[in-house]
Amino acid sequence: MTQDIPFLFHPQAAPWFQEESDALLLTLFCEEGARIHEVWLRHEPDNEEYLLAMTRVATRERLGIWQARLPLALGQDLQLYCFKCLTHEGQWWLHGAGISPAMPPREQHFRFNTRHQPPAWVQDQVFYQIFPDRFCNGDPSLSVRHHEYEYGGKAVISKAWGEPVSQQGEGTASSEFYGGDLAGIDSKLHYLQSLGVTALYLNPIFASPSNHKYDTQDYYRVDPHLGSNERLAELTRHLRQRGMKIILDAVVNHTSTQHPWFCPPRGAMGNPDSAFRKFYTFDQEGDYVSWKGIRSLPKLDFASEQVQDAVYRAEDAILRYWMRPPYQIDGWRFDVIHMLGERGTAEGNPGHVRAIRHTLKQENPEAYVLGEHFFEASQWLQGDQEDGAMNYYGFAHPIRAFLAGQDIAYHPIRISAAELDGWLKQARAHIPFKNQLAQLNLLDSHDTARFLHLLGEDRQRMMLAATLLLTYIGAPCIYYGDEVGLSGGNDPDCRRCFPWDSTAWDHVLHEHYRRLTQIRRQRPSLRRGDAQTLYAGAHSYVFARTLQSDQVVVACNRHPTEPRTISLPLWQTASPASRFTDAFNGDKFEVVQGEVQLTIPANSARVLLSS
Amino acid sequence: MTQDIPFLFHPQAAPWFQEESDALLLTLFCEEGARIHEVWLRHEPDNEEYLLAMTRVATRERLGIWQARLPLALGQDLQLYCFKCLTHEGQWWLHGAGISPAMPPREQHFRFNTRHQPPAWVQDQVFYQIFPDRFCNGDPSLSVRHHEYEYGGKAVISKAWGEPVSQQGEGTASSEFYGGDLAGIDSKLHYLQSLGVTALYLNPIFASPSNHKYDTQDYYRVDPHLGSNERLAELTRHLRQRGMKIILDAVVNHTSTQHPWFCPPRGAMGNPDSAFRKFYTFDQEGDYVSWKGIRSLPKLDFASEQVQDAVYRAEDAILRYWMRPPYQIDGWRFDVIHMLGERGTAEGNPGHVRAIRHTLKQENPEAYVLGEHFFEASQWLQGDQEDGAMNYYGFAHPIRAFLAGQDIAYHPIRISAAELDGWLKQARAHIPFKNQLAQLNLLDSHDTARFLHLLGEDRQRMMLAATLLLTYIGAPCIYYGDEVGLSGGNDPDCRRCFPWDSTAWDHVLHEHYRRLTQIRRQRPSLRRGDAQTLYAGAHSYVFARTLQSDQVVVACNRHPTEPRTISLPLWQTASPASRFTDAFNGDKFEVVQGEVQLTIPANSARVLLSS
Repeated sequence: MTQDIPFLFHPQAAPWFQEESDALLLTLFCEEGARIHEVWLRHEPDNEEYLLAMTRVATRERLGIWQARLPLALGQDLQLYCFKCLTHEGQWWLHGAGISPAMPPREQHFRFNTRHQPPAWVQDQVFYQIFPDRFCNGDPSLSVRHHEYEYGGKAVISKAWGEPVSQQGEGTASSEFYGGDLAGIDSKLHYLQSLGVTALYLNPIFASPSNHKYDTQDYYRVDPHLGSNERLAELTRHLRQRGMKIILDAVVNHTSTQHPWFCPPRGAMGNPDSAFRKFYTFDQEGDYVSWKGIRSLPKLDFASEQVQDAVYRAEDAILRYWMRPPYQIDGWRFDVIHMLGERGTAEGNPGHVRAIRHTLKQENPEAYVLGEHFFEASQWLQGDQEDGAMNYYGFAHPIRAFLAGQDIAYHPIRISAAELDGWLKQARAHIPFKNQLAQLNLLDSHDTARFLHLLGEDRQRMMLAATLLLTYIGAPCIYYGDEVGLSGGNDPDCRRCFPWDSTAWDHVLHEHYRRLTQIRRQRPSLRRGDAQTLYAGAHSYVFARTLQSDQVVVACNRHPTEPRTISLPLWQTASPASRFTDAFNGDKFEVVQGEVQLTIPANSARVLLSS
Repeated sequence: MTQDIPFLFHPQAAPWFQEESDALLLTLFCEEGARIHEVWLRHEPDNEEYLLAMTRVATRERLGIWQARLPLALGQDLQLYCFKCLTHEGQWWLHGAGISPAMPPREQHFRFNTRHQPPAWVQDQVFYQIFPDRFCNGDPSLSVRHHEYEYGGKAVISKAWGEPVSQQGEGTASSEFYGGDLAGIDSKLHYLQSLGVTALYLNPIFASPSNHKYDTQDYYRVDPHLGSNERLAELTRHLRQRGMKIILDAVVNHTSTQHPWFCPPRGAMGNPDSAFRKFYTFDQEGDYVSWKGIRSLPKLDFASEQVQDAVYRAEDAILRYWMRPPYQIDGWRFDVIHMLGERGTAEGNPGHVRAIRHTLKQENPEAYVLGEHFFEASQWLQGDQEDGAMNYYGFAHPIRAFLAGQDIAYHPIRISAAELDGWLKQARAHIPFKNQLAQLNLLDSHDTARFLHLLGEDRQRMMLAATLLLTYIGAPCIYYGDEVGLSGGNDPDCRRCFPWDSTAWDHVLHEHYRRLTQIRRQRPSLRRGDAQTLYAGAHSYVFARTLQSDQVVVACNRHPTEPRTISLPLWQTASPASRFTDAFNGDKFEVVQGEVQLTIPANSARVLLSS
């Protein structure tokens, strides 16, 4: 009864995927032994099935190569398609999540958005996330002074650089300051560039009483303890001079209770006649809706046209302001963007996110629209809303489960490499390939424990994780300090000061990151190529990235003590190379009869570069 | 590495699923041996994850029973939820499509729509689909006379009852008439009731020159060859007197070229100044968009407010007219509803389908909104659009693949019972449970070959198929004549005349259908109960339907020659019975230690009733 599943593959990168003026030229590779005699391209231009016959155009070793043109002129922006292959006994379908003996569900079909695509520059970046108070103090005259003001009813605390951060429950996590600022960031651009970083993502920098600044008081003013608007303009100018990009954190789901829209004398709180009353959601008792019930974060109501104007629509809207000279930021990262909505809920969310996208693209067609989503973001990533998401769902969480055995709630989780592969594939399958390339991949952030901490300070395994981060499909984002071995538990411990005394660095790890960013820079396949699984078993996972004649094979083995030898079916890839070199130790590999024999040491990853 | 997957189950029927005023009381069964010590109910009321701790309320044999309340007061109409179960080593998630070691993708989460639910009567029906020209001639004076008029440039043909229908390619498939009519249907209500039918679905009956009447000339007039408006009123009155329901076919994606909106003297065709010009989509050369390029079916443009008014919005809109006295039909089946849209495409489809739903529910909150979809309809079945779909995707196609080895394009397909189970489950997982109950399940229709024909006239296997149709979750719909062994290939051969000479009937098959409808009528679990797989292997598939203390087990084995003996884990079901009786041969079964031993003969199904 059980049928052997044949090998089928649909390359989505050049030269096997071509965008023509009104069609896509699509290619399918079919294993010769599978006796497939008829192949159909299935699509639904008007929600109805059409089957287009594919033509066998060539044979390559063990593969038959079939092609067809998918017309784009008619129908929806978002084109869904998949492939139906007939044998004399049955059929096989290739879709985004794999191969099945019957038509796959719609959400797994390949997808291409003809109208909305992410900016191409994103996929070429190495991002670096900075929590500004903790990265570098470049201008001590700005730093928050001890007991300078009150926050949450307590005097703020000034701490010396590197002093331990307070722990959860101490009540000072948000009100202690170390003095990091924009001048500090500016002073470290050389460091970042030598690490291979090409783009910055800064946590919020606008006027706010907390150290995290997710409670905004003034969206038009850089917080004076971080610098000034002029200082930001200078930083962005320096970045542009270096060819670097910058995105900022847009926190527009909620404000601070200290925002003039909310607080006395003219704000909405306790003032039913306030001009800003409709900016927020009040119940009949005058109580307001706040983000996750946190009283210091009253939630904006996007049902209000004034809020829409203030945030995105008006000529001088917040989001527009910082995209214009002299700042010209390259995009926004939107805090909890899935929660933004009307009347205290997420109602109307898709419409507002589309309008926000429209605003950003009006200001700059090349702007990067990045959403924060701790969980699955597929519905925001179909092209018409976001370009990419902080890829917790499709990268951080599965890698964390696989390597650290913990989920995002710090519960134990066990998955095999095969399950890892299924998770990664399924997450990719739900979004267009171009959006896969524009995802912001990360291992950790200001909201999670440091990955090194999760690994029990296992540097060897951290190097494995960094290899996956820098080679997987999507733009990698390094959380400041990860590259030198900065550790720390969950928020706030993950927000320790960057150790600028380099004697405290893990230089092996640092060198590993530098080498990885260099490889990524040199190899277009890592930035724009297909991602294709070559092996996924219990502990080992191997994938290839391929673009034109460029090819990189990434192989990892998480087993703590046992090396693993695998024969890799390179013949399955779009443009198999004939020779590879190990990126780290220079070992040479010959492809013999379409396969490469590879031994992966325990708890390690290898990167093979085509040569 | 591989972990044993524990048994987990979430009943969605009483008494284990309770709708309270502002919450759902949800239950999870966890296998005791799995050492699950903590269970969380995950939901996303505002698109953000919340984990609610579940409480262990009881133990039942091998099961721990956990409960929690899901609050409904806040957030979206559509609530998504799933269950996270922790062991000391890892975690298991239960979702609509099964159990996984990590969080499932969002589309597989359980779902409940708090605002939009299908009418409860639907799940209690046995539908019967009638192609009016071929069911019964009750008034020969109305019948189309030979060469009475021209259709498609040829004179129409009148044929004697039972004469072979023309074949595809002969060019007369749509223009030959046999004389079936409303009076004929009316005269057979007793027959239908004795078969156990409780609701009718009629293919189009409004004025149209073709025998199929999918090209409407006048939406306000019953075709004179089928009867009259008065005759329809009489039929619906007779149905109401018998407690029967009726739904009609709404063909509003396109009209006939003979519709006054389209044709001379005042129609849109060739007349740019026509008041109806915007009813259709014309290009600059004056050419019009037609359904799938079929020139006789010009496509309506729902961007036109006039079209919206005419079809659904205005006080005298087509859809409203027939829902009012004296007709009072109980719902509409919408032809190709996924294609309906603006400017010649499916653009704006969701908004129009929601507006259509709103219209129908305004006229009658208990109206049935049924969509025709040859393929996956999940996006229309979240509650706010359709109540149910003609369930090709989630029933007809998988059953056809499993039993007949053919797909809807008549290509060969091979799936195991395990793959059948995966397909059925996954299709169910995408829609709320109440919409699963309101699906219109079918084996065949006027658009497909007869199932008996697909089975090579294997009556034994047809009985197996009928058993699945009448016992699976959703409302069954019998295509006229299937119950007496009427056969036929693809359209138009599937539209043969009903053989009223009962000597031509397959009485064994007929009796089988009668017994099945009787069982369905007697057993609430078949109409409203959970569906739970007990076994799925290569050729055998067994499921249980459970509601309160009522339980039915359906077991089938498609193997042509080998019987199959299986031990069924009844202990996994919500309310396991202790004794069962075979519905057909009276065999008795005792449940021993939570299990039942059952032998299924080759090419057969058995139905066990709790007693």
